Amino acid sequence: MKRLQEFTKDELQAFVAENKKRYDDIKAQGLSIDMSRGKPSPVQLDMAFEDFKKAFEITDYQSKTGFDCRNYGLLDGVQEAKELFAELLGVETKNIIMGGNASLELMFSFISQCWSHGIGGCKPWSQQEDVKFIAVVPGYDRHFGIAEYFGIKMVNVPISETGPDMDKVEELVKDPSVKGMFCVPKYSNPDGFTYSEETVERLAKMKPAAPDFRVIWDNAYIIHEVYEEGDELANIFDYAKKYGTEDNFVEFCSTSKVTFPGAGISALAASDNNIKEILKRLTIQIISYDKMNQLRHAKMYPTVDALKAVMKKHAAIMRPKFDAVLDMLEKELGGLGIASWHKPGGGYFVSLNVDTGSAKYAGQLCKEAGLTLTGVGATFPYKNDPEDKNIRIAPSYPSVEELEKAAELLCVAVKLAAAEALS
Amino acid sequence: MKRLQEFTKDELQAFVAENKKRYDDIKAQGLSIDMSRGKPSPVQLDMAFEDFKKAFEITDYQSKTGFDCRNYGLLDGVQEAKELFAELLGVETKNIIMGGNASLELMFSFISQCWSHGIGGCKPWSQQEDVKFIAVVPGYDRHFGIAEYFGIKMVNVPISETGPDMDKVEELVKDPSVKGMFCVPKYSNPDGFTYSEETVERLAKMKPAAPDFRVIWDNAYIIHEVYEEGDELANIFDYAKKYGTEDNFVEFCSTSKVTFPGAGISALAASDNNIKEILKRLTIQIISYDKMNQLRHAKMYPTVDALKAVMKKHAAIMRPKFDAVLDMLEKELGGLGIASWHKPGGGYFVSLNVDTGSAKYAGQLCKEAGLTLTGVGATFPYKNDPEDKNIRIAPSYPSVEELEKAAELLCVAVKLAAAEALS
Repeated sequence: MKRLQEFTKDELQAFVAENKKRYDDIKAQGLSIDMSRGKPSPVQLDMAFEDFKKAFEITDYQSKTGFDCRNYGLLDGVQEAKELFAELLGVETKNIIMGGNASLELMFSFISQCWSHGIGGCKPWSQQEDVKFIAVVPGYDRHFGIAEYFGIKMVNVPISETGPDMDKVEELVKDPSVKGMFCVPKYSNPDGFTYSEETVERLAKMKPAAPDFRVIWDNAYIIHEVYEEGDELANIFDYAKKYGTEDNFVEFCSTSKVTFPGAGISALAASDNNIKEILKRLTIQIISYDKMNQLRHAKMYPTVDALKAVMKKHAAIMRPKFDAVLDMLEKELGGLGIASWHKPGGGYFVSLNVDTGSAKYAGQLCKEAGLTLTGVGATFPYKNDPEDKNIRIAPSYPSVEELEKAAELLCVAVKLAAAEALS
Repeated sequence: MKRLQEFTKDELQAFVAENKKRYDDIKAQGLSIDMSRGKPSPVQLDMAFEDFKKAFEITDYQSKTGFDCRNYGLLDGVQEAKELFAELLGVETKNIIMGGNASLELMFSFISQCWSHGIGGCKPWSQQEDVKFIAVVPGYDRHFGIAEYFGIKMVNVPISETGPDMDKVEELVKDPSVKGMFCVPKYSNPDGFTYSEETVERLAKMKPAAPDFRVIWDNAYIIHEVYEEGDELANIFDYAKKYGTEDNFVEFCSTSKVTFPGAGISALAASDNNIKEILKRLTIQIISYDKMNQLRHAKMYPTVDALKAVMKKHAAIMRPKFDAVLDMLEKELGGLGIASWHKPGGGYFVSLNVDTGSAKYAGQLCKEAGLTLTGVGATFPYKNDPEDKNIRIAPSYPSVEELEKAAELLCVAVKLAAAEALS
């Protein structure tokens, strides 16, 4: 296929006319599709709910340690749940703290602690001159939101198929005001890249100038394969141990997309030192998170194999949705030279990069025709995509039929926006 | 009865000998009773669990607004739950935010917000010269813990049957560095005092020098009557509206002692301004708290009457326990002039004041004989009871039989400690 850049003026005019007509036709259908967030679909929730109801049939709430999980206590969580997450994350049980219904809240509170009290024996970040974070871009808007809330300055580092640009990262951490970075190391949000073993090792090997440098290792999609040939992510703590840098990493994950968003359980994994510092704060913040929900989850899915088995069912629901989007992108945009994307092995998103820098306009065209995307720009700090390229596609919630329409609309909008940018 | 202070030397010697013998006898029984925290008893949890299981039998998780509570969204909570707490707290539904499993966490996060970002358009507390809180004493150790964690200096104001010493409070709030106070206005922890209507009005009428002065109105025992003739607490927001001071108060409560400690739901009530500021933070901190648990609770107990009905069942379990303690105090210590206490209408505690200032020693004697009390001193900021008087008794968890033994031991220990202090 000819690249759009090589179209003659007449060809471009015909291309615009054709796509304008398609756009108007789709718009006339009065669509109302929301692809703004990575929300599981009702079918997935029904599935989890069936398992959940079975877990409710348990007649008592005693942990295997004999603890009555209906009462106060167990700040770091129920033993069964701790063991499950230790197995999942490949760390020792003592290095796990169970959280509430949201790993985001665990991250927020950790950053808040660094901000108000400092970490690793250093001054609170709020009392340090200049506090910066590396923002791997495009990335997760809610990570950037936390940094922005605390006034942490973000420095963009681009991601590619192997993970963040490590040359840039290694250079940046020489600056003692660079205090950390947010990573979604497996099926990165939004691109679906999984950090290569080399990237994981280079991250673990780093000796940042700041002793209070912390990587927020948000393993949100740890078992969220969509395709059979899913990606392998190296265990960050194995490498960190090798290089004596365990304190640099705090790992987070949850069952938000295994059981229920907002009604699942979350956990963090950290070094002995970080666990100690986090517990010191938690002992003031809360008496314990919801242990009944922790126990229920551990009874629903008592092993990592059980978790993986249910994720296979999720994958079967997600696969045709990802296919619908990816097929449409290929069919409509393949070879045109105006957009690029990656076929992710899992996760919750497909990321479309509009090479002509007209993502915002494409997003606006979609919106006017009834399709809500994640706010274009939101995948960058301060909602500012400097090249106006990135569009995050969240295929999980709509039906396949809706997705086909939505993806077609998106492609037509991207074509129109690209043509305008080129003319 | 003769006051211990009036005993002759011989009488005192006989008194000590008698009680030393009783103490040794009890110690020989090898008790192991924990009265350190206000934990509901297994019987109460079984009761709640029966209702809980019924709520699980609901077949869907749709809120009456049509929202699927199993998915993301609803930052401020499920409509049914918001309405329930609005009714309970006597405020409008728009002034309610539902929280997670712990009102303590809501308070911590609110103080943390004031600390890092400020409130009411003022500079963050962390950037202000001197930040003080009024500590109503004796009080709840976890409140003091939050203030201490953030380095907020606490100034003690004593409580009596009508609430905090309002002359002192009104004087203190003239100081712009006094930023707030913690109140447990009904069945105060530990004394069980309920603020009088006059106290509530005087608090509402105050115009503190600090525009960012905030009262943490922890209505933890709002429906936690133990005796039929429970106390009435005036609605703080009714008075605050009258005086235009709604922004000065943020109210908190939970079902921790209605359903399950750590697996219930919590809520806050606040003015439009405060709600707006809190939501601005929450939108960064979390996507939503556990809405399935909120909906479940609203289905278990859909009205305040339903909540009050279950609290009557709790009261029936609690009453003989409170009686056991209060009867023993009267029998053993009444008229001796060495200790005083209040018979609370509800709540979770009985507070014993050892007038001879030997609470710590009495607590130690108890501990050595197998009875763990709340750390003596913990009811004061910095764990420092300047007069060494206060002992918090938490009768909820042990059985009546255990309580009788525990209360007897406590009384004997107080007598021995008092006698030593006097001789």
